[in-house]
Amino acid sequence: MANEVATEIKRLDINNSNINVKGGTEEEDIVNPWNVVSKSETGIDYDKLIKRFGSSKIDDDLLDRFEKVTGHPIHHLLRRGIFFSHRDMHKILTLYEQGKPFYLYTGRGPSSSSMHVGHLIPFIITKWLQDVFDVPLVIQLTDDEKFLWKDMKLDDANQLAFENAKDIIACGFDVEKTFIFSDFDFIGQCPAFYRNMIQIGKCVTFNQVKGIFGFGDSDVIGKISFPAVQAAPSFSSSFPFIFGKANLPCLIPCAIDQDPYFRMTRDVAPRLGYHKPALLHSSFFPALQGAQTKMSASDSNTSIFLTDTPKQIKNKVNKHAFSGGQATVEEHREKGGNCEVDISYQYLRFFLEDDEELKEIEKNYTNGDLLTGEIKKKLIEVLQPIITAHQERRAKVTDDIVHTFMTPRKMKYSY
Amino acid sequence: MANEVATEIKRLDINNSNINVKGGTEEEDIVNPWNVVSKSETGIDYDKLIKRFGSSKIDDDLLDRFEKVTGHPIHHLLRRGIFFSHRDMHKILTLYEQGKPFYLYTGRGPSSSSMHVGHLIPFIITKWLQDVFDVPLVIQLTDDEKFLWKDMKLDDANQLAFENAKDIIACGFDVEKTFIFSDFDFIGQCPAFYRNMIQIGKCVTFNQVKGIFGFGDSDVIGKISFPAVQAAPSFSSSFPFIFGKANLPCLIPCAIDQDPYFRMTRDVAPRLGYHKPALLHSSFFPALQGAQTKMSASDSNTSIFLTDTPKQIKNKVNKHAFSGGQATVEEHREKGGNCEVDISYQYLRFFLEDDEELKEIEKNYTNGDLLTGEIKKKLIEVLQPIITAHQERRAKVTDDIVHTFMTPRKMKYSY
Repeated sequence: MANEVATEIKRLDINNSNINVKGGTEEEDIVNPWNVVSKSETGIDYDKLIKRFGSSKIDDDLLDRFEKVTGHPIHHLLRRGIFFSHRDMHKILTLYEQGKPFYLYTGRGPSSSSMHVGHLIPFIITKWLQDVFDVPLVIQLTDDEKFLWKDMKLDDANQLAFENAKDIIACGFDVEKTFIFSDFDFIGQCPAFYRNMIQIGKCVTFNQVKGIFGFGDSDVIGKISFPAVQAAPSFSSSFPFIFGKANLPCLIPCAIDQDPYFRMTRDVAPRLGYHKPALLHSSFFPALQGAQTKMSASDSNTSIFLTDTPKQIKNKVNKHAFSGGQATVEEHREKGGNCEVDISYQYLRFFLEDDEELKEIEKNYTNGDLLTGEIKKKLIEVLQPIITAHQERRAKVTDDIVHTFMTPRKMKYSY
Repeated sequence: MANEVATEIKRLDINNSNINVKGGTEEEDIVNPWNVVSKSETGIDYDKLIKRFGSSKIDDDLLDRFEKVTGHPIHHLLRRGIFFSHRDMHKILTLYEQGKPFYLYTGRGPSSSSMHVGHLIPFIITKWLQDVFDVPLVIQLTDDEKFLWKDMKLDDANQLAFENAKDIIACGFDVEKTFIFSDFDFIGQCPAFYRNMIQIGKCVTFNQVKGIFGFGDSDVIGKISFPAVQAAPSFSSSFPFIFGKANLPCLIPCAIDQDPYFRMTRDVAPRLGYHKPALLHSSFFPALQGAQTKMSASDSNTSIFLTDTPKQIKNKVNKHAFSGGQATVEEHREKGGNCEVDISYQYLRFFLEDDEELKEIEKNYTNGDLLTGEIKKKLIEVLQPIITAHQERRAKVTDDIVHTFMTPRKMKYSY
């Protein structure tokens, strides 16, 4: 479908799922953990999504308060509206102001191929939030979800989680504040986690998950109860080895397509005596071919992967990055390029941290001073060192280091 | 409803569940884990049930072979047709003949009140089977099921499992061959168990559990996926600390109302490369007031509890045991009593081991020589020492002993 947008920040990219996808009327965009389909040519209407999901827009007031309360300049992913929506972020800032504890939770559905740059986004913001707030972080790798939704072996899903953990660790998380776990490994090590799964599973009916996730009668029972598995880390009592008996609020940075899980979680939380998790929602990371193309694990040309060489990056950007420029240099100089659809510019919004430089590029590309080849060159220059540095850090992540991150243990904090 | 029969051998006695109970057409008896309703005045038609469930009748050929192969006289619960149906029992005997390994699995939904004598039946036969076959045994206490179906606290369900374990251990199980576990305690200690739950959960659709268990759209997702939890112990790989990597068949003695779980399990097993579990099915244990009355945890007069004093036993039997005798002594001497509905006689079938004596009682009660007061006296004399002995053994079951039985550990066997 032509209007499909890329959804690669989501946990699980199941495109050919037989799920009876719910969410969105005829005119509404479909946004859920397994499918993101825009009904308009301009892509997902994020403002409408905020209204429909009942979340709040991240506005200047929130960003100003963020800077004031934390004393840190706001991260460019927030500043530029890539994280655009939230739930209860003011409450988290108030807790921080008052010196009260909370924690971070994010996650990932392990991918079969290498992770791509878009997959880094939630981890980049999470790492920054961990640094700014100095709080514990739990990262869930849903290898059970992967296994349930895909035609694959359990051990293979579990192995993918382990490999993905290396890329996540390479983002620079502090081992003293970060617990990474795969469901297949961890749930069998933590009775408290299973207890929360069942407590959540007692609060949510099939009718509800049907409405929220679009499950149908022909879906397997493993899928139907999975939302309880993704909800459980939102409650600090799932991790007694970190939080003891403390009942702490948590903040979840994630792509907006994961919101259905946490709407459900927020509904359940008060009935169990827990806090509703707060959320920061990101928009979607586009494919090289443009927001209308779906990124595909089977087509390595749809994105820049964390394993790509500098040469591959150069070739991919030059060959495949959708251009918002004009057909000829003359026409481009005259009419200028369209940053809104130009993938090089869009990727720079994600990865070029210097606001002044980005503004210059936008101005010059829009007025035609900067040519398509030149903006592509800039993107290549920005991406190559990021990916190379990532690869260097990842090469140092030994199996032992992964095991340390994935071992249930006390953190730097005591509760 | 007048025709309801007692179903207290079942795992979970939820009578007022809002489950849309399935199984049984207008004329068919309803037999599933949460409801047993006879459509005929003579109670459950077990022969019809065998046909409908597709199991096999335990016939003389099987019993003869049982004795021949094991060299043990057959247990009276089998000899008297109280265990009346099976699946693949011949296969288990063949394995035993060939000296090939298998194991036993049974379980119980922990009950809020004390256990009653009927609850002992599956454990009595299981203990005997363990002695005869000399094989490992796993006993599942489904405190998660109890919590999901009942309006109660999680810790209370978990505590009930612990208390019930004491009664089970008092049945005389060999600690070197027996692992008892509660789901809430154990699933968080055994990644292999969770893996099997998810593997099973990937093979069974909502449509299927709807058909098998009668789940509906308003049931909670915890219930919907619970069948995978009860199925998992059927596969030896769920207990790597006992069975290593061996893929062993298992034999499950249980009341016939639990068969739906294991029909499902048998359907799934070959797709996962596991053996289909074999089964021995018992009929139901009747209430003191007769097979038409439902045993009730809230009415202590509907059964003999394992905590009853000799005096309580005497009073309950004398006051409440439904009599198949006649209205007056004269009439009784003339017409004789009806053993088929006489609860004292029926209970003696379960607990009086001496065949000759039972036959005498049947003859004399039927021809009127034995009066109602006399058959009740006999039952009291049989039950009192059984219950007293049970209480003495249970008093010796310390918390430490329970913890030992419930600790995942190597058994006497190595695989």
